[in-house]
Formats: sequence, C-alpha cells, structure tokens
Amino acid sequence: MAELKTHKDIDDEAARHILRTASTKARELEAKMNIAVVGADGHLKAFFRMDGAWMGSIDISIKKARTARYFNMPTGEIGNVSQPGGSLYQIEHSNDGLITFPGGVPLKTKDGEVVGAIGVSGDVVEKDHEVASAGAQYLLD
Amino acid sequence: MAELKTHKDIDDEAARHILRTASTKARELEAKMNIAVVGADGHLKAFFRMDGAWMGSIDISIKKARTARYFNMPTGEIGNVSQPGGSLYQIEHSNDGLITFPGGVPLKTKDGEVVGAIGVSGDVVEKDHEVASAGAQYLLD
Amino acid sequence: MAELKTHKDIDDEAARHILRTASTKARELEAKMNIAVVGADGHLKAFFRMDGAWMGSIDISIKKARTARYFNMPTGEIGNVSQPGGSLYQIEHSNDGLITFPGGVPLKTKDGEVVGAIGVSGDVVEKDHEVASAGAQYLLD
Amino acid sequence: MAELKTHKDIDDEAARHILRTASTKARELEAKMNIAVVGADGHLKAFFRMDGAWMGSIDISIKKARTARYFNMPTGEIGNVSQPGGSLYQIEHSNDGLITFPGGVPLKTKDGEVVGAIGVSGDVVEKDHEVASAGAQYLLD
Repeated sequence: MAELKTHKDIDDEAARHILRTASTKARELEAKMNIAVVGADGHLKAFFRMDGAWMGSIDISIKKARTARYFNMPTGEIGNVSQPGGSLYQIEHSNDGLITFPGGVPLKTKDGEVVGAIGVSGDVVEKDHEVASAGAQYLLD
Repeated sequence: MAELKTHKDIDDEAARHILRTASTKARELEAKMNIAVVGADGHLKAFFRMDGAWMGSIDISIKKARTARYFNMPTGEIGNVSQPGGSLYQIEHSNDGLITFPGGVPLKTKDGEVVGAIGVSGDVVEKDHEVASAGAQYLLD
Repeated sequence: MAELKTHKDIDDEAARHILRTASTKARELEAKMNIAVVGADGHLKAFFRMDGAWMGSIDISIKKARTARYFNMPTGEIGNVSQPGGSLYQIEHSNDGLITFPGGVPLKTKDGEVVGAIGVSGDVVEKDHEVASAGAQYLLD
Repeated sequence: MAELKTHKDIDDEAARHILRTASTKARELEAKMNIAVVGADGHLKAFFRMDGAWMGSIDISIKKARTARYFNMPTGEIGNVSQPGGSLYQIEHSNDGLITFPGGVPLKTKDGEVVGAIGVSGDVVEKDHEVASAGAQYLLD
C-alpha cells in the first residue's frame, strides 16, 4: 500500500497560546471579544467568551473560524465577492451559515500549510480582524 | 475563590408591565402587534400576539427581541451596517436567524445595565419601533 | 359562491384569562412554570415564563401546546402510543419536534370545538398537566 | 418601579479555572475529553477539545452543558426519566437537541445558586461525569 498523506494540525499547546495571544490583544484594544479556534479539520478546538462580550457574537466567532478554514482565506475576502452581483453571491446560505465579513483568519505554519483558523467577534470588524490576526501570528513567530 | 460577578434581570412584574405598556401604545396607534420580551439571558420571558396580528410576525418579534439583546442595541442599528457593502453584511445568517430592521430595543435600567430586550412586529417598522420603545421606557420612568 | 366555513378562536381576553388562571394554579402548587397558549391556528398566542422557571422548559411548553393542538388531544395520550412498539413510535421527529408527555391540553369550547391549546412545563408532569388543565377549564366555566 | 432581581454568573477567571481543573482530572484518568462551560445565561462561555478527543463529542459536550443548565440538574438524572415509559420520554427532541446521559453538571456556588454548567464528553459516561464534577467542584473549594 502506498503511504498515506500526512498533515499538520494545531495541538493543545498551540491552541492555548493562540487563544491567549488573541485575548491579550483584545485587552490592549479594550475590546470584549468572543474568540474561536478550529483545527485543521474545521471543527471547534477552543473557544472563549470574554466577560461582557456580545451574546450574539458567540456563534459569529465560531462561524468566522469555520468559514476561514473552509476556504483557507480571511473571511473578509469572501465577503468581497459575495455582494449583490458578485461571483459568490449568497454563499452565506451554505454550510449551515457562513460569516463573510472580517474577523476570521486561517492559521498557517511558516511553510504556508493551513492548520486551522481563528474567528473573532465582539467589536468593529477592523478590531475583530486585528485580534484574529494577532492570534494567527503566534504560529509565525 | 474570588467573588463572582452579579447582574440584574427583569422579573415577572416588570415583564407584565412592559408587555402592557407596549400593547397600550399599540392600541393607541391602531396597530395589531406581536410583542416579545426576552430576559437578560436572551431567552423568551413573555409574549403576546394581539388579535388580528400577522402570523408571520410572531417569529419576527421574537427574533427582534433576541437580536436586540444579543448585541445590546436597537435592531435597526445593525440593519444600517448589514446592507450590501456594509461592515456586517449577511450577519442575519448567524444565531439561527437575526432580524435587523427596526422593532427590537434593549431593556435597560436607569443605570444603563441591559436586563433584556423587547421585540415588536406587525405594522410598518416605524410603528414597531415606537411600540417597542414605549415598552422599554417602562423601566426608565 | 357557497358560504365559507367559520370557526371559533380564542381572543386577547380569553388568552389573558387562560394564562392568568394557569399561573394562579401554578402558584397554588408552588411550581415555577413556563406557560404557552396557541390559537386555533396552532401558532403562539401568548407565553409567560415565571421567575425561576427552567430555561429548558420554554421550548417544551410551546411544543406541548403545539402538539396538543396539532392532534386535538392531551399530549400524554400521544405519548402512550409513541413508545417502542407503539403505533406512532417516533412521531416526535415530525413537525420540527413534538413533546408527547403530559402538560399539553387542547382548549375547547363548551360545544367541544377546539379553539387552541395550552402547554405547561416546569415541574413533574402531573403538575404540568394540572396547571394546563386549570387553564383550559377557563373556557368551560 | 420595583427593584429588579439580581443573580450571579461565572466570570473569565472562574471559567478558566473550571476548564483547567476539569482537564487536569481528564489527564489523571488518561481520557481525551471535550469540555464545554456555559454561563448563567445558558450560552457558551469556554470550550476546549483535548488532542485526540472524538470529533463527535464536541457537540455532545456543548449540549450536555446546555442541558444541565436548562434544567439545573446533572444530565444523567434527566436520562433516568426519559427512557421508554418514563415521564419525560423523548424530551431530547426539545431545545434543538438535548443530551440526557451523564457528563453534564450544573455549576453552583456554595449558596446553591446555579451560575452555569459544565459538559464533558469523550470517554465512558462515568469518566465524563467524573471530569465534569471535578470542574464543578472548583466553585465549592
């Protein structure tokens, strides 16, 4: 039998550090965030709702992480082409709901392999994206 | 162990008064409304469908109340930024369905603490919002 | 054109009295109940979650009311035949979820016309049924 | 206006400690667990999937936590009465899916106030329950 393919994935330690790095950035920005991390398989690996974060952003942060991993790109890039007249118009109806505005970012190794994604929701989308990016940066430092 | 945080919530009496205040305003406006109240936990606390109110507005009123509590703001404010090209475009796909046009209003104490929300649906959105606001006003008088 | 059929339905006043009669009985029994009333059309007419009532019973009380109206019989009677080997085994999978244990009771006029249903959840099923029956009795007194 | 009721809730620090206490117990038992914590509002507060834990247990752990909070009792107690012929047969069809076997435990303060719940899934239900109980114990020590 031929050798099966292998792929990398985040582990417990990486997940914890990504969560911590992101929540540290959130506190720096004085933002109350929901932070979700999915593994290489696209399923939830870790989640934290900071005190006072919007209840409605729990689901959004998880959907952002899933969306970013499902297509291996930042959620905002999908949103650019899901507008009326865009090539992926209404893609949000698939996969039990996608979120296509900024705040979801793929987790990549230095080699560029996607090993998961992080989704952040709780403030304006620029801050959501900044916090998610800070979390994703952990694997690159 | 450190002390846990505490927060307020509406009780039976408040819920009944909010419902009554809102339905009185609805009759004033000659509008047939569905009126939903959720508690601080975002779950349904009280609901009333006035005689002749649209059947399709039952769910909308409940979703408006949930949406207003989930993000601690009037639903119409979310709708302003969920338009095509807006920063929260298609947010309605999250949380098993949000409603982002006017008619949902957070319930706040005089101190500004959010203790629930009210959602109203059954007429033009201006009237929906007016009735919801009348209900929310009860806690401030 | 032939005359269309007419049917009776509960109105605002009846709904309010049914809710009040049921909650008075709940307090008598020292039970914290969720109480739902659906109209002749099977859609939610009124709902109240008493202070301290189980969060999980909100949905159950609504499903009990819906179930009782959908089949015009007390929910417990359906549960008798939805057991393993029973004639309606697994009927709970239909209609986006039914509840087939006691606590849902049709609302009938003195003439026997079904004009809605009441569903109660929050305590042992015997008390749930007793409170629902008290509410339904209002139309018969 | 009368004073509103107040209640307690877990905060960031408590959630982190509960998660840590539970995962320490899981490692002691050599079990790979999904651990979910919901707040007093029944919504997700924190989640962690340990390396190698079953993918299918992500949702189960979250549903166990929700179920325990929705009814303020360990999930296994509900399962005792939701068996065929039991008083709550098929209750699992409510609330978008409940899990009624052991592994979900309410989080209580020393005064007995329910401030959330923990749900654990990934091994035999006895171990799931043991890990959840260890997490809940944190608030009592």
